[in-house]
Amino acid sequence: MGSLRWFTAGESHGPGLTVIIDGVPAGLPLSEEQIRQQLARRQKGYGRGGRMKIETDYAHIRGGVRQGRTMGSPIALWIENRDFDKGLGPDKRPWRETMSLESVDPTPTQVTRVRPGHADLTASLKYGYDDVRDSLERASARESAARVGAGAVARRLCEELGCEFNSHVVQIGSVALDPSVEADWDAVEASPVRCTDASVAEAMIDAINAAKRDGDTLGGTLEARVSGMPFGLGSHVQWDRKLSGRIGQAILSMNAFKGVEIGDGFSGAVLTGRGYHDVVLPQDAWDGRAWRRQTNHAGGIEGGISNGEDLIVRVAVKPIATLAHPLPSADLATGERVEAHYERSDVCVVPAAGVIVEAMLALVLADAMLEKFGGDSLAETRRNMESFLATAVPRGEWT
Amino acid sequence: MGSLRWFTAGESHGPGLTVIIDGVPAGLPLSEEQIRQQLARRQKGYGRGGRMKIETDYAHIRGGVRQGRTMGSPIALWIENRDFDKGLGPDKRPWRETMSLESVDPTPTQVTRVRPGHADLTASLKYGYDDVRDSLERASARESAARVGAGAVARRLCEELGCEFNSHVVQIGSVALDPSVEADWDAVEASPVRCTDASVAEAMIDAINAAKRDGDTLGGTLEARVSGMPFGLGSHVQWDRKLSGRIGQAILSMNAFKGVEIGDGFSGAVLTGRGYHDVVLPQDAWDGRAWRRQTNHAGGIEGGISNGEDLIVRVAVKPIATLAHPLPSADLATGERVEAHYERSDVCVVPAAGVIVEAMLALVLADAMLEKFGGDSLAETRRNMESFLATAVPRGEWT
Amino acid sequence: MGSLRWFTAGESHGPGLTVIIDGVPAGLPLSEEQIRQQLARRQKGYGRGGRMKIETDYAHIRGGVRQGRTMGSPIALWIENRDFDKGLGPDKRPWRETMSLESVDPTPTQVTRVRPGHADLTASLKYGYDDVRDSLERASARESAARVGAGAVARRLCEELGCEFNSHVVQIGSVALDPSVEADWDAVEASPVRCTDASVAEAMIDAINAAKRDGDTLGGTLEARVSGMPFGLGSHVQWDRKLSGRIGQAILSMNAFKGVEIGDGFSGAVLTGRGYHDVVLPQDAWDGRAWRRQTNHAGGIEGGISNGEDLIVRVAVKPIATLAHPLPSADLATGERVEAHYERSDVCVVPAAGVIVEAMLALVLADAMLEKFGGDSLAETRRNMESFLATAVPRGEWT
Amino acid sequence: MGSLRWFTAGESHGPGLTVIIDGVPAGLPLSEEQIRQQLARRQKGYGRGGRMKIETDYAHIRGGVRQGRTMGSPIALWIENRDFDKGLGPDKRPWRETMSLESVDPTPTQVTRVRPGHADLTASLKYGYDDVRDSLERASARESAARVGAGAVARRLCEELGCEFNSHVVQIGSVALDPSVEADWDAVEASPVRCTDASVAEAMIDAINAAKRDGDTLGGTLEARVSGMPFGLGSHVQWDRKLSGRIGQAILSMNAFKGVEIGDGFSGAVLTGRGYHDVVLPQDAWDGRAWRRQTNHAGGIEGGISNGEDLIVRVAVKPIATLAHPLPSADLATGERVEAHYERSDVCVVPAAGVIVEAMLALVLADAMLEKFGGDSLAETRRNMESFLATAVPRGEWT
Repeated sequence: MGSLRWFTAGESHGPGLTVIIDGVPAGLPLSEEQIRQQLARRQKGYGRGGRMKIETDYAHIRGGVRQGRTMGSPIALWIENRDFDKGLGPDKRPWRETMSLESVDPTPTQVTRVRPGHADLTASLKYGYDDVRDSLERASARESAARVGAGAVARRLCEELGCEFNSHVVQIGSVALDPSVEADWDAVEASPVRCTDASVAEAMIDAINAAKRDGDTLGGTLEARVSGMPFGLGSHVQWDRKLSGRIGQAILSMNAFKGVEIGDGFSGAVLTGRGYHDVVLPQDAWDGRAWRRQTNHAGGIEGGISNGEDLIVRVAVKPIATLAHPLPSADLATGERVEAHYERSDVCVVPAAGVIVEAMLALVLADAMLEKFGGDSLAETRRNMESFLATAVPRGEWT
Repeated sequence: MGSLRWFTAGESHGPGLTVIIDGVPAGLPLSEEQIRQQLARRQKGYGRGGRMKIETDYAHIRGGVRQGRTMGSPIALWIENRDFDKGLGPDKRPWRETMSLESVDPTPTQVTRVRPGHADLTASLKYGYDDVRDSLERASARESAARVGAGAVARRLCEELGCEFNSHVVQIGSVALDPSVEADWDAVEASPVRCTDASVAEAMIDAINAAKRDGDTLGGTLEARVSGMPFGLGSHVQWDRKLSGRIGQAILSMNAFKGVEIGDGFSGAVLTGRGYHDVVLPQDAWDGRAWRRQTNHAGGIEGGISNGEDLIVRVAVKPIATLAHPLPSADLATGERVEAHYERSDVCVVPAAGVIVEAMLALVLADAMLEKFGGDSLAETRRNMESFLATAVPRGEWT
Repeated sequence: MGSLRWFTAGESHGPGLTVIIDGVPAGLPLSEEQIRQQLARRQKGYGRGGRMKIETDYAHIRGGVRQGRTMGSPIALWIENRDFDKGLGPDKRPWRETMSLESVDPTPTQVTRVRPGHADLTASLKYGYDDVRDSLERASARESAARVGAGAVARRLCEELGCEFNSHVVQIGSVALDPSVEADWDAVEASPVRCTDASVAEAMIDAINAAKRDGDTLGGTLEARVSGMPFGLGSHVQWDRKLSGRIGQAILSMNAFKGVEIGDGFSGAVLTGRGYHDVVLPQDAWDGRAWRRQTNHAGGIEGGISNGEDLIVRVAVKPIATLAHPLPSADLATGERVEAHYERSDVCVVPAAGVIVEAMLALVLADAMLEKFGGDSLAETRRNMESFLATAVPRGEWT
Repeated sequence: MGSLRWFTAGESHGPGLTVIIDGVPAGLPLSEEQIRQQLARRQKGYGRGGRMKIETDYAHIRGGVRQGRTMGSPIALWIENRDFDKGLGPDKRPWRETMSLESVDPTPTQVTRVRPGHADLTASLKYGYDDVRDSLERASARESAARVGAGAVARRLCEELGCEFNSHVVQIGSVALDPSVEADWDAVEASPVRCTDASVAEAMIDAINAAKRDGDTLGGTLEARVSGMPFGLGSHVQWDRKLSGRIGQAILSMNAFKGVEIGDGFSGAVLTGRGYHDVVLPQDAWDGRAWRRQTNHAGGIEGGISNGEDLIVRVAVKPIATLAHPLPSADLATGERVEAHYERSDVCVVPAAGVIVEAMLALVLADAMLEKFGGDSLAETRRNMESFLATAVPRGEWT
């Protein structure tokens, strides 16, 4: 419950993004290069707009790491927005004026034509903004770069404790991968849409191109998978300790994610109990790992607790809300019919979304592992984990 | 962030369930009868097993209420398990011995044949139990009675602030309601499977009967809907303030719920941006309520903030894990092939699940309203809400 | 950070007190008798009023314990208020009418003459009460019985992990124990004012008698001490992880406690650095325990982390706010000059306060140990603790 | 409960300090200049060492503020450590090598001679450090600059809602201000030791000089006062909602603070109830403000709730642990007798400590006000506060 805690700050066209991650144990090898790799994965993907081309994200570590290892103190990341100093925004005005800390003269042009599907209207009403920019700068998908930075730190911890994270795109628009196809993770990483099947990937790219031509956008579905995760994470004892719930929050905390399943969700609801539940194999079929299952419909969680099988999470990503051919909308200032505001945007973020889902899962799992195993150094946490796993033999005569 | 906090305690065959709800404002009219109604709704539903027949849940309020109104102090609920004192459990032994606080002689028969799909194995490994009963008594769906009790209190607060909660079953096994059908809430409440269409309901009942004959179980899908919810709940500013994420956690914190969608989730991922996003109507089409939408694909949340439209949440419920014709499994003590344990259980809980989802949503929304509007009495919270809503007119000349 | 979580509920003259403690590991031996002993210690002490004589507190465990051991699930306690059913309150009316859940006719007499020093006025303004009873019933010191119940559970865990809790009264009114006197814990437990020195105790009793004759009340100072606590609890890395801060919150969360010191606080502020700081002894002077100190001015905490020496906490207890010869005050309804309300009360609670301080410290330390060592069963937590302590030898050649 | 949340990160000689403050409402006028003023107050004070002379702290706002006002999004602060790039540390080596993110060759000289009174030993054992620098860089009082930065933001919010913060030194070593003297805040701000009485201040300076000559350090006592605070903050209903407890945590979360009192603490414990409790004046003596008291022994909090009088908090500050003439100690690596490490340090921080206490109080109060009044913009929070205060008239006929 809150062993690992993290916040992000910063606006899309402000000076940059700040992250603090509190609770990472000491002694974890960590470098800026490892974080950079995850940030780079997020920036790839067919369907991204102009920003991805001009700006390569880099997170500077500004606390918590010394001589190549964490110290147990909070880790601070700083991801500069290069656009802030150099770029031009609305009215060809430098972003550092539009986003200035202090008031500038003349006042930056206000955005009042709210975009459906964004926080534009909801946040403006909630916070009392006159200028929708006060909302859209923070509600922007740019914030996910900060999450991926935080997630890269958590991922390093999880990896040291045996976890491996992957994800792939299974649907973009109406182009879907055959659900029976197993992902080849190398192929996924090489694919411009993070799809394991090259011909499906091509169809996805075609769909993205078509949407772009229409000034439209596309959503889709992705699947993330964590293998090597220890059993025993989360708990059945209280509603807010369930690992499944914590994953649910982490995923649906992204504006673009509108659905989440753990293992067989909506498709599993059609099965009978006999078809759904994952038979526990007897000891002689375990093949070196304890308490194996025959199938994995549960997606690695039973009773709110990890069961040692792969964690499988599927996520529904809505189409991007900013359309080049804008939807009709209303004006915040007058309530009158207008066209929604358009601001440089992507056509499809489903490929990048998988990287974000991996990051969020890493943050949840790192927290759950620290909660279960305790420890203030990697050595201590690992020692505690290993001594726990050694107890999980059959209570009887097993050797 | 934690304005309303609640815990449940108690085991399925122990003396009873205890609930504490901390943070309910003073001055809310609240009676045991109002809680009883929700508990009764949970106990109905075709497909429930024997327990529902023998035992009618009643929550005694044991703190926080005086002279018909809350006092702002924590509300304690006590739901007695009548079985504890009177019922017989394994080996025809009274439950009060099997579940005795103090050790009894002879030791109660241990359960070691783990049921796939339950916390049986995961919790036993995590907590080091020799007897799976130490897990199954708490991981039991019985705990949801405590949640419905807590939810009934939260619901009362939400109702006073204008919300109305409903839910209906849209699929059981492979029998599905046509998605275009609008629910008639009275019909739903009258239906034994909480399905709005009587002929579909009949097919659902047939499916449940067939599963029962097979010693099998069924899952399904339900949809919950909250109307009258104010806009401005949740926030876009930090990952853990998003209303969507908090709903995700609340729903996936039930063991049986494996998928959740807000608005169009997996089905919406297929749409293009133009088809998906909900056009904001101009002022002259508002018809007495501000900032109306033409459609509601978003399910009432944009940017992690409620937008004033109905909250729509769809939930995938897995088939019950306890099968009368048990699955093969392994023995906790020996690792050997056995049949899974069977303990009195239901065949299908999807109808009841809707009531639980309503309760969880009420708990999330009550918390979010207290966070947004503050206040320590119903009058104060309502006054703050009303003065906020009055500001949400177009910033311009609207009168 | 929230490994162990607990809430209390219930009013002083309502049906009873409810407690939920969430996060206690499985396998901890726990009985109602162990809790009863702590509740009994709280009820003793010279200077208590009538209630202590009529009512002996008993906490029924209603969840989380089976066959003599905890299960890891939340522990629920129920402490009945016998007065509720049998006692008469204001206007010789049964408490169960005055405190009725439902409104009774005629309406119970309202209390409006606020007592200075209580929550009477502050809570009534905050929560909008017309009847001060809505505040005083929950703000009552009776709630501390629930804390002592929760603390008794936490104490059991701490004891199993090596901690021992004691406290003694060092001052009542102007009668003070010589600070150089070391407490004899058996003598303290036998003393009616929990003072180690019999002649000082006698003077304290005289002072209490004198205050009683005057219709007045007395406060005082007590010292609590925890020995056997492992080093490494708390943290220096973030403000809210400091063990010292968490103790500060726990202690000042009691209305009657107005000051707290860890080790030499206000008296230590007079010393120079050389006189204050506790020299770390070299290895050859450790005598079986690692990293011993020559003195303990720091009271067992340095840098927000326990250092293995005794935890020493001193607490200032204000005189009780309810006076038999009431203070002048104002009326909540009219603002006019009145005498404050009087309701059956004690003259001095300093002896009992020590038991409450021990309980609060046990709750903080149990949480801190679970956070540091993790673990879901006593065996796991203990194993993790022991393997940690084994690492705390000099990094060099020590054997 | 966590409406306003904040973390700090960064090491004393690392690149700088990072702060994120989450939950500040939108529309609050905020400038870097306002934060700079508080940082400058912290750096003043007789008895500070060399660092204060070389480095002037400046916090850059890097998120959450635009055009002179907050946006409701998290506020990020960046306080650069100029020493990191330019300064030389141990072995005349640049700090940027000693504190390098990546491992450097040769490895920086390790600190192993632990200082009593610091986190040196406790944190090294807890986190498994070989090099005490991994602890002392974060446990350093430098972190308080980040707190003062965060506090400056909270203070701005509190000020807009009517609060005024002050503090003064009442004792340094054995030189004490007469407790009956009222502070003149202008004189305090002008005094090099933040003492209201010039001749006492001179004696304090003499004491600091003497300690410096001896290679020793001094502690002391300070008093902070918040006026204009609304009543109704905090709550009596649950232990962790008490305003007093939250203040206790905030204060004792500073390593150097070993004691805290709210109002009359240890001195008040000597009084009788009649002498201690603050008589509520009748309406005709209120003189424009509601529910006034005759005295303020309670220090502004009754029953865990603010009562509208000044908040008075007294804090005991221990002498600094780093001595120029070091104490004997033991070596982390060998357990052998050594002299403690010395690193550039101050002689007395009591004057600066008052600024830190003000900052911590501002953070607690801002959180409590947001919890009580809700609101996402300054206008909304203020409107809710004002409408609440308007209800706090006598329930009867008052006009």
